[in-house]
Amino acid sequence: MTEVGNAAGKRVRAHLLTIGDELLAGDVIDRNKAWMGRRCRALGVEVVRASTVRDRVEEIVAAMREAAEQAELCLVSGGLGPTTDDLTAESAAAAAGVGLVRHQALADRLEAFFGARGRELVETNLKQADLPEGAVVLDNPIGTAAGFAVELRGCWLFSMPGVPRELHQMMREQVEPRVRERFAQLVAVPRRVYRAIGSGESSVQQNVKGVLAEARERSPGLASMFVHYRARYPEVQLILEATPGPDDAGANAVELASLDEPLRAAIGPALYSVSLGEDDEGDEHSLAKLLVAKLIERGLSLATAESCTGGGIGAAVTAIAGSSACFVGGVIAYANAVKIAQLGVAAELLATHGAVSEPVARAMAEGARTRLGADIAVSTTGVAGPGGGSPDKPVGTVDVAVATAAGTSYKRLLLFGKRDTIRYAATLLALKLVLDTLLDTLSNPDNVAPPTSG
Amino acid sequence: MTEVGNAAGKRVRAHLLTIGDELLAGDVIDRNKAWMGRRCRALGVEVVRASTVRDRVEEIVAAMREAAEQAELCLVSGGLGPTTDDLTAESAAAAAGVGLVRHQALADRLEAFFGARGRELVETNLKQADLPEGAVVLDNPIGTAAGFAVELRGCWLFSMPGVPRELHQMMREQVEPRVRERFAQLVAVPRRVYRAIGSGESSVQQNVKGVLAEARERSPGLASMFVHYRARYPEVQLILEATPGPDDAGANAVELASLDEPLRAAIGPALYSVSLGEDDEGDEHSLAKLLVAKLIERGLSLATAESCTGGGIGAAVTAIAGSSACFVGGVIAYANAVKIAQLGVAAELLATHGAVSEPVARAMAEGARTRLGADIAVSTTGVAGPGGGSPDKPVGTVDVAVATAAGTSYKRLLLFGKRDTIRYAATLLALKLVLDTLLDTLSNPDNVAPPTSG
Repeated sequence: MTEVGNAAGKRVRAHLLTIGDELLAGDVIDRNKAWMGRRCRALGVEVVRASTVRDRVEEIVAAMREAAEQAELCLVSGGLGPTTDDLTAESAAAAAGVGLVRHQALADRLEAFFGARGRELVETNLKQADLPEGAVVLDNPIGTAAGFAVELRGCWLFSMPGVPRELHQMMREQVEPRVRERFAQLVAVPRRVYRAIGSGESSVQQNVKGVLAEARERSPGLASMFVHYRARYPEVQLILEATPGPDDAGANAVELASLDEPLRAAIGPALYSVSLGEDDEGDEHSLAKLLVAKLIERGLSLATAESCTGGGIGAAVTAIAGSSACFVGGVIAYANAVKIAQLGVAAELLATHGAVSEPVARAMAEGARTRLGADIAVSTTGVAGPGGGSPDKPVGTVDVAVATAAGTSYKRLLLFGKRDTIRYAATLLALKLVLDTLLDTLSNPDNVAPPTSG
Repeated sequence: MTEVGNAAGKRVRAHLLTIGDELLAGDVIDRNKAWMGRRCRALGVEVVRASTVRDRVEEIVAAMREAAEQAELCLVSGGLGPTTDDLTAESAAAAAGVGLVRHQALADRLEAFFGARGRELVETNLKQADLPEGAVVLDNPIGTAAGFAVELRGCWLFSMPGVPRELHQMMREQVEPRVRERFAQLVAVPRRVYRAIGSGESSVQQNVKGVLAEARERSPGLASMFVHYRARYPEVQLILEATPGPDDAGANAVELASLDEPLRAAIGPALYSVSLGEDDEGDEHSLAKLLVAKLIERGLSLATAESCTGGGIGAAVTAIAGSSACFVGGVIAYANAVKIAQLGVAAELLATHGAVSEPVARAMAEGARTRLGADIAVSTTGVAGPGGGSPDKPVGTVDVAVATAAGTSYKRLLLFGKRDTIRYAATLLALKLVLDTLLDTLSNPDNVAPPTSG
């Protein structure tokens, strides 16, 4: 058995148990484990271990018993479907040493569910109405698999469906309120997430060093805070968590937020967002979301002219609901002929400087701005690889330009990685350049003139 | 302890152990577990359990000991870095009851590595040269973290870095050959993956039922094959694995492949690819990859005119290296003004039928084809949601058209899900429509005329 420290004597520990052959065979990536882990952190529950087992009763029972010895909570996902492979209820009953009982209300609901869809309810479907004796039923308003909670040797085991959206809703609506009620001592650990694009991990780390060292001297709470860097090129996140120290002193949210200003100054213009980090969905869209909000707030419109990103910038912007209020469209100018015909790039520029060059990037952005009739236009032209590199323009060279009424700014990016990585980084860095332009140049209303429609 | 069946008396079992607080807190999704699982399947090794533990020696040791009781192989990822959080070598030594020894060759290599980068080697870095006594060193040519193998109570434990590309290379080059050598009885389970777009999971299931039932009657090997459906909307995969039955009889690769023809016929035109399913990378790009290959093979060019997908089709096509040989570019026509100005869609069409309509979809594709000068052009216009739906054009309505010299085909899609899901499904279904057009209409050379340049 694992020995788990419990210094403050009142931290609530959890074991995450995910069930299914497909998770072990690698056919499905175990996102439920990470998702439950994030919810636990937000609840103030400490995840001490996770297991994944096959669809076999004896193996599921063994894992549940081990979890009960290690933690006060066991969160289970999967194995609640109607097929013979779905064994979670049977296993939980065996682990608790009880039988299964049919819940008539659930059976009625299943019957109604199938009836409404004109499908016949067969006996195997009714299996989903059978739960361990004494279990608390967890409603599933969007699926046929009800969840349940049982007590197992002092550990509270919550069983939820493996289908992500059903799991998410049940965890939020059924599990978390019960956990909060049962463990009155739970206090969510305050958290701050600082997101930066345009600085490397080591340089962010170097820049904030002094601020963090000073903070640790200021109070015992800040002294024990947990600092975590997360690099997802080209983005770097600095995550602060007010984890309580050995004497149980943790910083409060206000104290933690007092670091915003000095950290903003230390990280510099690469920093684009500071949040509580509670938005566990849509993480990958955060920069585009912010940009769309700022564009709409200022009543400005955006157009794109993409070569190496091939539509990725447009796709990132339009991933945001409501982006039609600011995004007019763009040209994917992959072939030089399209750069010339659709964006008005002069053929001589292409011949003299090559497609990946400052003059072409500028002409693309300016062409998109006037021809598509937008306040701002952004362009990309570069070498995404694996082929196409040359000594002076190696793979990863990407030219980006942003055109506004006030003029056109330009930047050459030198990016690392495989084709996908380079394109992803170029997309985010281009969006960041648009945001910077919006916040700097266009904060002066004189610089916002109606574009000439082409 | 978990009881694990070992019917044939010679199957090799593995336990996957992933190490790191970030995996339990959900800051990182555990892709290494799934990746190692897929490699095990390809090797013929059966993964019987997976665990994730925190960066604490006593917890790592406990997990290693449990793994050794359950399996012949334990594959470990993570905890090999130079920081105080990296405890895998120390833990493996403790689990095996041995000490750590410094490997001078590794220390020299670290020194050379840092020297070449002009960085100073500090004592903590040398930690990466300390491995359990008696361990076999696993080279890491692309990073500082060497891996190692140790024997633990009859179980062979392989420790690899958590950085995915380092893990992948070490597993392929260092671990797999050793596993194959040690377990001579290993036979990879033959596998077939059938991918379909345009049919739902239940309809694919229904259609192949007869073929599979007949196959099971044909031989004991086929009788015991494992059939798995994997739905990643809008794609459905049918996966066949020649898992040996209780009498150890499994189908061979030739026998399994004999099902291709009847399954092709049963699944129908939705089927677009049949493979061994061994390409564990780039899975998400498989349709675009195939389309780009077919376009290049036939010397045809493609252009796009995207509204609701916002650049996603262009991004999907240009994700493929070498796509510049067939993809000329596209217009992201989000605003109606762009549909009119850049694609030549008549303003009356938009006023009469609305942007989401057959005439507009057709005009967009035809406009892109002539103006961008391509053999084929594909368009999308639809309601991605969450807003913008109406009774006759609810959220999820997407019109797709494909224009060629032979004429324009059109399809209305009715898609489900959230905005991201609808856009993703529309992108893949549009690519599928292009592929179908290519394979049908354009297989007649008379239908391939040079487009008029606009």
